[in-house]
Amino acid sequence: MARFLRNNEEKEGMPPGSLVFTGQQKVAEPQIRITTYDNSELKDEDIKKYQSITSHTSSDKVTWLNIDGVHDSSLIKTIGENFDLSLMALEDIQDTGQRPTIQEYQDYLFATMKVINTGSDEENVRAEQVSFILGDNYLITFKEQPSLIFEPVRKRLFKQKGKIRQKGPDYLFYTLLDCVLENYLKVIERIGERIEDIEEEVIADPKPEQLEEINFYRREIAYIRKSIRPAREIILKVNRIDSEYIDESTAPYLKDLTSMLEQSLDSLEIYKEILGDLFSTYNMSIGTRLNETMKFLTIFATIFIPLTFLAGIYGMNFEHIPELHYKHGYYVLLGLMGAIALVMLVYFKKKKWM
Amino acid sequence: MARFLRNNEEKEGMPPGSLVFTGQQKVAEPQIRITTYDNSELKDEDIKKYQSITSHTSSDKVTWLNIDGVHDSSLIKTIGENFDLSLMALEDIQDTGQRPTIQEYQDYLFATMKVINTGSDEENVRAEQVSFILGDNYLITFKEQPSLIFEPVRKRLFKQKGKIRQKGPDYLFYTLLDCVLENYLKVIERIGERIEDIEEEVIADPKPEQLEEINFYRREIAYIRKSIRPAREIILKVNRIDSEYIDESTAPYLKDLTSMLEQSLDSLEIYKEILGDLFSTYNMSIGTRLNETMKFLTIFATIFIPLTFLAGIYGMNFEHIPELHYKHGYYVLLGLMGAIALVMLVYFKKKKWM
Amino acid sequence: MARFLRNNEEKEGMPPGSLVFTGQQKVAEPQIRITTYDNSELKDEDIKKYQSITSHTSSDKVTWLNIDGVHDSSLIKTIGENFDLSLMALEDIQDTGQRPTIQEYQDYLFATMKVINTGSDEENVRAEQVSFILGDNYLITFKEQPSLIFEPVRKRLFKQKGKIRQKGPDYLFYTLLDCVLENYLKVIERIGERIEDIEEEVIADPKPEQLEEINFYRREIAYIRKSIRPAREIILKVNRIDSEYIDESTAPYLKDLTSMLEQSLDSLEIYKEILGDLFSTYNMSIGTRLNETMKFLTIFATIFIPLTFLAGIYGMNFEHIPELHYKHGYYVLLGLMGAIALVMLVYFKKKKWM
Amino acid sequence: MARFLRNNEEKEGMPPGSLVFTGQQKVAEPQIRITTYDNSELKDEDIKKYQSITSHTSSDKVTWLNIDGVHDSSLIKTIGENFDLSLMALEDIQDTGQRPTIQEYQDYLFATMKVINTGSDEENVRAEQVSFILGDNYLITFKEQPSLIFEPVRKRLFKQKGKIRQKGPDYLFYTLLDCVLENYLKVIERIGERIEDIEEEVIADPKPEQLEEINFYRREIAYIRKSIRPAREIILKVNRIDSEYIDESTAPYLKDLTSMLEQSLDSLEIYKEILGDLFSTYNMSIGTRLNETMKFLTIFATIFIPLTFLAGIYGMNFEHIPELHYKHGYYVLLGLMGAIALVMLVYFKKKKWM
Amino acid sequence: MARFLRNNEEKEGMPPGSLVFTGQQKVAEPQIRITTYDNSELKDEDIKKYQSITSHTSSDKVTWLNIDGVHDSSLIKTIGENFDLSLMALEDIQDTGQRPTIQEYQDYLFATMKVINTGSDEENVRAEQVSFILGDNYLITFKEQPSLIFEPVRKRLFKQKGKIRQKGPDYLFYTLLDCVLENYLKVIERIGERIEDIEEEVIADPKPEQLEEINFYRREIAYIRKSIRPAREIILKVNRIDSEYIDESTAPYLKDLTSMLEQSLDSLEIYKEILGDLFSTYNMSIGTRLNETMKFLTIFATIFIPLTFLAGIYGMNFEHIPELHYKHGYYVLLGLMGAIALVMLVYFKKKKWM
Repeated sequence: MARFLRNNEEKEGMPPGSLVFTGQQKVAEPQIRITTYDNSELKDEDIKKYQSITSHTSSDKVTWLNIDGVHDSSLIKTIGENFDLSLMALEDIQDTGQRPTIQEYQDYLFATMKVINTGSDEENVRAEQVSFILGDNYLITFKEQPSLIFEPVRKRLFKQKGKIRQKGPDYLFYTLLDCVLENYLKVIERIGERIEDIEEEVIADPKPEQLEEINFYRREIAYIRKSIRPAREIILKVNRIDSEYIDESTAPYLKDLTSMLEQSLDSLEIYKEILGDLFSTYNMSIGTRLNETMKFLTIFATIFIPLTFLAGIYGMNFEHIPELHYKHGYYVLLGLMGAIALVMLVYFKKKKWM
Repeated sequence: MARFLRNNEEKEGMPPGSLVFTGQQKVAEPQIRITTYDNSELKDEDIKKYQSITSHTSSDKVTWLNIDGVHDSSLIKTIGENFDLSLMALEDIQDTGQRPTIQEYQDYLFATMKVINTGSDEENVRAEQVSFILGDNYLITFKEQPSLIFEPVRKRLFKQKGKIRQKGPDYLFYTLLDCVLENYLKVIERIGERIEDIEEEVIADPKPEQLEEINFYRREIAYIRKSIRPAREIILKVNRIDSEYIDESTAPYLKDLTSMLEQSLDSLEIYKEILGDLFSTYNMSIGTRLNETMKFLTIFATIFIPLTFLAGIYGMNFEHIPELHYKHGYYVLLGLMGAIALVMLVYFKKKKWM
Repeated sequence: MARFLRNNEEKEGMPPGSLVFTGQQKVAEPQIRITTYDNSELKDEDIKKYQSITSHTSSDKVTWLNIDGVHDSSLIKTIGENFDLSLMALEDIQDTGQRPTIQEYQDYLFATMKVINTGSDEENVRAEQVSFILGDNYLITFKEQPSLIFEPVRKRLFKQKGKIRQKGPDYLFYTLLDCVLENYLKVIERIGERIEDIEEEVIADPKPEQLEEINFYRREIAYIRKSIRPAREIILKVNRIDSEYIDESTAPYLKDLTSMLEQSLDSLEIYKEILGDLFSTYNMSIGTRLNETMKFLTIFATIFIPLTFLAGIYGMNFEHIPELHYKHGYYVLLGLMGAIALVMLVYFKKKKWM
Repeated sequence: MARFLRNNEEKEGMPPGSLVFTGQQKVAEPQIRITTYDNSELKDEDIKKYQSITSHTSSDKVTWLNIDGVHDSSLIKTIGENFDLSLMALEDIQDTGQRPTIQEYQDYLFATMKVINTGSDEENVRAEQVSFILGDNYLITFKEQPSLIFEPVRKRLFKQKGKIRQKGPDYLFYTLLDCVLENYLKVIERIGERIEDIEEEVIADPKPEQLEEINFYRREIAYIRKSIRPAREIILKVNRIDSEYIDESTAPYLKDLTSMLEQSLDSLEIYKEILGDLFSTYNMSIGTRLNETMKFLTIFATIFIPLTFLAGIYGMNFEHIPELHYKHGYYVLLGLMGAIALVMLVYFKKKKWM
Repeated sequence: MARFLRNNEEKEGMPPGSLVFTGQQKVAEPQIRITTYDNSELKDEDIKKYQSITSHTSSDKVTWLNIDGVHDSSLIKTIGENFDLSLMALEDIQDTGQRPTIQEYQDYLFATMKVINTGSDEENVRAEQVSFILGDNYLITFKEQPSLIFEPVRKRLFKQKGKIRQKGPDYLFYTLLDCVLENYLKVIERIGERIEDIEEEVIADPKPEQLEEINFYRREIAYIRKSIRPAREIILKVNRIDSEYIDESTAPYLKDLTSMLEQSLDSLEIYKEILGDLFSTYNMSIGTRLNETMKFLTIFATIFIPLTFLAGIYGMNFEHIPELHYKHGYYVLLGLMGAIALVMLVYFKKKKWM
């Protein structure tokens, strides 16, 4: 199955705005959590059966609605109706294979981004879509499955009467974006460490497994780059947006995100280059090593060639080969052979062939 | 015949605006189909003999005129006269080898794009031109041959009293563009899956057929890139057009197309890179495999070289070679030879040459 | 002699605006042809001795003055005086090695472009300069030598009372530019066909001649790219010019040229890439082929090595080698040798080395 | 530990603006130094226990506060309160792994840059962060550890009643930026000299150590590029800033910095290219050298092959081999062997194989 | 010593604007030459002891002051005081290793460029700095050493009462820039010719010297590119400058320079590519040639292997080898050996291995 481009054939022939889940279902039941807070109060509840938002929220508080699992089209639709969202946005939430995007609507801002999941060291990384809907006094987030990526923010909401509780949903949006970009840095750093390890291993002792790893990480980095590069446009657009749902005091925080993202992309670029260099270096080390072996064998054989020739000479059956009748002929010849071998060895040493 | 650049020598010396078909005729007779619809009614008819549009349409309905087959210059001309189209546009419809383009005229918008056709797995992909003329209350589409690419849209027109029936020809135009871009994603995904398969095969067991496939897909991807990259300009221009024949409510839909196209181009870029890497990997795997063989053979030969030398020694005809007269000389020598071979094997093993 | 950069040492130390021909003279005598036309009348004459333009033209007709051969400085000067042209422009006409350029003067537009000449298949392509001076009611064109590139336009002027006879010199300028860009497409297509042929040949049966051809076409494409890329700026500038000598009704035609040029450049880019890939593929095919040969020879030799060793054993002169006295010793040994050879062959086959 | 991307996991879950040091502590105690000066007076003092800035400065003098060591969050916080600095800026000062950045605040300009430290030749270079806060009449600089990079400026402040004493903190800022860019040039020059040396060595006598050095410097250059490229944006922004704390008379000095930085980046680009070329050249030299050896050995062996064959012929035990009974048969054969060897040598010489 | 980046350590710790010569002194004494001219008169004098400019010039004439040799800081300073020049500019004149730059000051324009010096064919090219100060009625030029680069202009000033004598210092500035760009074209053309020669040589007969030349010219081209690329910004800026010291009638001449420079850079780009291709081609030719040799030797050896084996067979000492007693056994065997060799030769020929 193509990891780099996943088309949604399920949707063919449907009108734009049809709600169809096109990814791989990663959670049995969508998990819904509503957090409402203001400076003084915070309410955080898991909801089993989502019906309407009105019973859980009030207009003077910030509402954060988080849904883990986006395969349930009817749920998405209900939420869409509650918040009066465009069908286009709802469709994008369920189309998890698509490119990150950002769109301004009349009353809210819609953005999707990718989170990079790494399992154990052996597995491929996988990008998962996170969608944000930022309205006047609410923020809705959709993830493909429960994950801990937003937990630090939730903890901060709980633990302290800090800035986040005094500010609006735009600031919450910023802190969550910050989490997503942190995630990129973390994933890239982990891969980067492994790559720098491989580098040392390749120089010390090149092995075919390293080549496989090099190719593996080349794919990983191409995949991550493809997933996070569009985020650049999104962050840029968020920075440029002159919108009612982004408070002016949050703007400087948003600017900081660009720098974080650029750092991720710079590093990816460098690791890509390093892997290219590693491939060449590996290739060359292997070649050199093999050639050294061949050279040794060839030299070894070369030394015996004139000796065997000499033995052949005195194995001939001519009637008149005077040397054959010398008393010490045999020993003289053995001595000569040793001398020849020695001279050749010295010559090869001098030529630095050994 | 050059697939990457097809010049139309037929047209040399003709004034611009001469209607000459410059491609390869792919259909015996042009097939004409007129679909007129509004919110309540839909008429869909095949037309054998096209004379005039007036009998088939009415000004308060949307007219979609689709022609499959563009080799019949007189038909194109008649249509051009009916809709009062520029000769330049008509000429571009018949010049199927040209680059996708978009042009605003006074009363209509003219655009050409490429659809990618894939036959079976073995064949080359081929780009076919699709032309769009979007007027106030009509949309004309020209394809080189009948194909199913627009069928999903036609079905939607029939099946449901949905949005498409309530909107104008600009929305129809959008849904057809959407089909074209879907087509890109689909073709690229199919090629992508094959490439990712080849990747695994090359690592597992490199074979010359894979090399041919790698080169084949390199060409394919260059060809597809050439065909669809100009679409970027077209989509961008459609987005930017401030025109009477594109309704404001359709604009957000059009914006979505950019993202789809970028995804196609991103993926092509990655697959191009992967193929480049695959070429190197293949090259290297083949080289390594061959070298391993050569090394084995060389080691094999090397072991026999000193043994043969020893046999040569005792095949000499010196009168005084005392060993020859030892009772167990022969067996001692055979033992010695075995010992030498063993020592060499152990040495090579220890050196990791075997 | 450097084909990629030709400096005009003849001009060193001369003030800018000095009329000196710096190319290679390609025609004995400049050939002058004046074509004047309007909607109803056309006059076309070869002129032997150019003195003044006034006798040949009238202000209410379009005058097209074409000069083939630009080595005659005094002729260029006379024309310059007739039409009141800048010395800078005249200088550029004669400096045939320079980069295509466009310059707006008060009363006229001056542009130079390159035409690509291909002789037979074996020869290098050569770029020749074409200069255009587009005034209010005249167009002057200079070519380095007589060629048929503008003939289609001339024929059109003659044959038909078409659009070209109703429009001004700006439209004539457009049709000639169209000829030049057609010329690019034609040359690139011819080269492209050959490259696609080579591609098939390299895969089928790599030969050194192909390598030479690959390198040859690499140079050609670099040369063509260098010659036609600056045309992009020129076409762009022509499109953007808001000038009195370019009629508004001609503008859409000019826009079409950009698309033609982009197609040429796209194709060159692709052919460049293909040639790079071909080089690698050729390199690898040759290597593989040679290595297969070496492997065969090595295997062949390897099979004989233990056999020769055995023969050596029984050629030894030990007094006590019991096998030598067996009645069928010789035949047993021959059988053993055959068996050894067979086992090795089977082993190599099984290892897929043969 | 990843050198190219260092993530700060310590900060996870903390709100933006939390003061946490994320680097490696490089100094036991932060060293604080306050320099206040105007045209006539200069005071320079080391401060053990920083409490408040007011006792050390006066509003009509320029204050330069330099802190070496940024791990002490409480100190940073105190300074932030003294100068009324944003938490965002303070956080960036302690986050030493982040990308260089510049931010305009209401009352001050905040910028971070990297200084490149090289230990001895063997060690990796390491980038250290320098932060600048430029206010109306003060400049605060933070370095990760004491270093001599700003010493030239301090000396200038002391030694002479020059321009620097007459100008404001913006000019001081400029001279310090100048130091940082000088540092780049110096580091790159040192690396460049070594690279140009390696180049000569590789051509003269390729050795594996050189390959390691080539790979080492490739990494170094990637690392330096990553560290200093963002400075481009910073210098550009400083040039464009229309701010109250940058005096107009300082502006031309700032413009000069761009040129210095471009020179650094140009050189890095060239050295990167040279190292790539060197890698290929090394690879090829090694290959050529080895192949020459193999060719020699092969030729040597080849000469003995027909001779050994001849010896084998006359070692056969046929009853009737007339040559064996010739009186001078043995000597004739030896002569023949010598002749054959000679002919082969001459042939190989003529073919230029030796 | 690093040729690509030359840092000026002499200046460390000095304030910006310190006059210190940082290059390599190339002339014993600075040579000063003042040329004053107007339409009717021209005075040209060498000055031994420069004190003041006033005695040599008058305000209604154009003054061209040329200084060859920039190591004498006190001279530079005196000139700076005479013309009221900024210290920054004077500093740049003496800092000969820096990047070409242009700066507008209140009363004059300051620009530095590089001239490329080539000695004989064997030597590296070296860039030398030329500085221009263009004021209202004067032009000052500084070169590192006397060279003939400006001589054509001086001759023109002398010889003819041409345009240059009627125009101001801005036109003189233009003609000198023209000289500098001519110099680029000339150097690149000379290198280009040599590269195109090498190309033919490599194809005809690859030799190690060619490889060295290829690497040599790669460096040269990198060096030239680094030296002249910044000129692009300078020419662009000169074109865009809306300044009192550049007359409007000179502007079109300046525009022409861009085209010249682009041609230089285009050609450098192409030659860079050609050298890269040449490297690959050389590499491959050498490899192919060597491999052909090895193949020949291997085939030669392979033919003898079965023959030697046969000789070994009949050298065995079995009591019962019937063939040994056949009368013509020896001759039959020799014939058989000849036949085997022949069959192998034919087989190898048929396989196209020879």
